Amino acid sequence: MSLLSQLMNAFQILPGVGPKSAQRICFNLLQKNKDNAIKLADILKEACEKIGECQRCRTLTENDLCRICLSDKRNPSQLCIIETPADLMQIEQATDYSGTYFVLHGRLSPIDGLGPNELGFPKLIDILSKEPIKEVIVATNSTLEGQTTAQYIAQMCQKVDIKTTGLARGVPLGGELEYVDANTIAHAFGSREEY
Amino acid sequence: MSLLSQLMNAFQILPGVGPKSAQRICFNLLQKNKDNAIKLADILKEACEKIGECQRCRTLTENDLCRICLSDKRNPSQLCIIETPADLMQIEQATDYSGTYFVLHGRLSPIDGLGPNELGFPKLIDILSKEPIKEVIVATNSTLEGQTTAQYIAQMCQKVDIKTTGLARGVPLGGELEYVDANTIAHAFGSREEY
Repeated sequence: MSLLSQLMNAFQILPGVGPKSAQRICFNLLQKNKDNAIKLADILKEACEKIGECQRCRTLTENDLCRICLSDKRNPSQLCIIETPADLMQIEQATDYSGTYFVLHGRLSPIDGLGPNELGFPKLIDILSKEPIKEVIVATNSTLEGQTTAQYIAQMCQKVDIKTTGLARGVPLGGELEYVDANTIAHAFGSREEY
Repeated sequence: MSLLSQLMNAFQILPGVGPKSAQRICFNLLQKNKDNAIKLADILKEACEKIGECQRCRTLTENDLCRICLSDKRNPSQLCIIETPADLMQIEQATDYSGTYFVLHGRLSPIDGLGPNELGFPKLIDILSKEPIKEVIVATNSTLEGQTTAQYIAQMCQKVDIKTTGLARGVPLGGELEYVDANTIAHAFGSREEY
């Protein structure tokens, strides 16, 4: 197989990239962007070799501890639990949350072989017992599995007497009711707030 | 800047990849696909270093001559001229054309600094004079610049008495008239064919 065909196949591991996009990417890089493509190859390889999980919060980092866990400006009494490093990034960008994080890398899903150990619960229990945490914010996805995971964590926290909160649920800001799903409407209607 | 941020920036050189897709790609590769990502990095680097232009037809290849120019099964009396290696691949996949190719890597566009020399016309003239070519099929894009380029090539071929043809133009197969642009309709109407 020619090197070009190998490269087109290799690019198809990217999410959302099929044969046509892979072809377009290859020609673009090889014809117009070789220098940047070589840089991309070098950084990608270095990242694959060096980036692993933060030893405390399990987000992705090239060091033993991530930037947030190392910072002395974060509030040590709040811990936010999320499913993925992408969720962590979303919360960092969208809110002024100043506590620390813990990344599950998934949600409880026995059928996929994801149990408490795979989600790092032993490490989480360790953090809850050693750190001065007063509030755990469980920001798992608003899916069935995400909410089951949240319930599980909430029970864990209750045992050690730590307050647990979850994200408010209701209609998204700027959303038109016509396009909001029925479950969300029903929940938002039932939990309506007084002006 | 963290290695992760560098990687996210690096991925944004890909056509059609913005900050959000780059983030998604990075997390996907680092969390689930590290082995394939390392392979991609290796192949990408090797491709950037080894892939260049075929010395005869100017398409992309890792060797001095591409697979098609090396083959003794191609018809040496037909030469198809296209703008890009992607166009070459399209014609190879869609047709049973068995002649050889010549890739311009662009179209005549003085404003972009693309003149006859940049498009390899000296090499093209050399091919036309040395090879037993009886028909040149000019398959440049059906744009103003592509057609200007085609005219230029047709004149060049006339001087050395070689027949020049272009792709038929009209309504696309399977296209609904309602969505075909007015220029195409006008051309197709004027050049209507008898059943």
